[in-house]
Amino acid sequence: MSKNDIKQQIGNYAAKLVQNHTTVGLGTGTTVSYFLVALAQRIKKEHLDIVGVTTSEKTTLSAKELGIRIVDIDDTDGIDLTIDGADEVDTYLNGIKGGGAALLMEKIVAKNSKENVWIVDESKVHNILGSFPLPVEVVPFGSGRLYREFALKGLNPRYRVDNLGRRIVTDAQHYIIDLVLDVINNPYELAQYLESRVGVVEHGLFLGIANRVIVGNDDGIEVLERRTANQKL
Amino acid sequence: MSKNDIKQQIGNYAAKLVQNHTTVGLGTGTTVSYFLVALAQRIKKEHLDIVGVTTSEKTTLSAKELGIRIVDIDDTDGIDLTIDGADEVDTYLNGIKGGGAALLMEKIVAKNSKENVWIVDESKVHNILGSFPLPVEVVPFGSGRLYREFALKGLNPRYRVDNLGRRIVTDAQHYIIDLVLDVINNPYELAQYLESRVGVVEHGLFLGIANRVIVGNDDGIEVLERRTANQKL
Repeated sequence: MSKNDIKQQIGNYAAKLVQNHTTVGLGTGTTVSYFLVALAQRIKKEHLDIVGVTTSEKTTLSAKELGIRIVDIDDTDGIDLTIDGADEVDTYLNGIKGGGAALLMEKIVAKNSKENVWIVDESKVHNILGSFPLPVEVVPFGSGRLYREFALKGLNPRYRVDNLGRRIVTDAQHYIIDLVLDVINNPYELAQYLESRVGVVEHGLFLGIANRVIVGNDDGIEVLERRTANQKL
Repeated sequence: MSKNDIKQQIGNYAAKLVQNHTTVGLGTGTTVSYFLVALAQRIKKEHLDIVGVTTSEKTTLSAKELGIRIVDIDDTDGIDLTIDGADEVDTYLNGIKGGGAALLMEKIVAKNSKENVWIVDESKVHNILGSFPLPVEVVPFGSGRLYREFALKGLNPRYRVDNLGRRIVTDAQHYIIDLVLDVINNPYELAQYLESRVGVVEHGLFLGIANRVIVGNDDGIEVLERRTANQKL
């Protein structure tokens, strides 16, 4: 199967997880875009009463184009299920997100969701996190000082820039600094360090958030359920 | 002495603390504005080589008008001394800041300063923090969910609004939620709780930051030096 066929298959599978009369968190990314199309088709065909909460301006546009009703997160009583992608997932279902620069809204939506399901292709699943650079969303003012601190700490920072070399600005008007780490031995420790830094708005470590991960590969779909940190593989 | 005379006196005193050939953090607020005028006079009169890093767009404007040279915080090798105000200070020199909605930039500047001196009138000094509402700077997206969480926790939240009842937007494009608490028994615990919430960019608890507080009253100036938490008054 082509990579797009696999994403199509995952998107269809995820769309079936959505129950009628619920509020659904809509993630961001290419795999999610297949889910959005499949969900819109189900809503039309089955006349479902479903509202979506989006995680980026991009997803808001796509969802509206597809005819999915969108509500503001503040006008909900919480989200029943969020379907989102991930840039990397480990075997504890901890993950790195933010490749699409939407980590802040994605984390706010995830934290307000009763259940979180990630949809990925098998290339995203690794034993240890870190091969995907860790995005850190920062307040522009003073971010150069943070950058230097990260560099001194050996965290290998890179400002995320666009094709013209300009620093990208997130939907919430912040910069992204990617930490090129290769291996993150203690993601909880790193998360705590980053959260303690003034000027860091959020980081791409999503720890203990995903309840299930739907992994697509050539043979079909595999579902990973969250284990606790003490359980062996 | 009138309140303005006291502020004038504190401002003059603080301006004398600034050494030649240094980078100075310039706070925000009415007491600070007296300091800025006094500093600008010293710079002109004594031909001082001093650059300032500001903590708000308002202070940037004032400093430029007064002829104080301003640099971007990212173009410095750190700040030697920051002079700022505070909305409330306890006897451990912990404080609440953010009444002027500049807490985020103020904290970034403070954390990058070798020394922090606050200038206040005696009405700001209390045994226990909390009589000044605690400002929390939040990402607009999902802030209503945070607000409800704060309310459920008994933290008595209020969106900060302007004269027309519209939510004020900070220099960094965030909202302010003020927590009307009266008494903060454990500021470190509250700070940790707030920092762990997704969507909270920063809060107004400045703990272990001020090295000295210059307190002005009718009789003159009193200087409080930081004690450790174990020392008695």
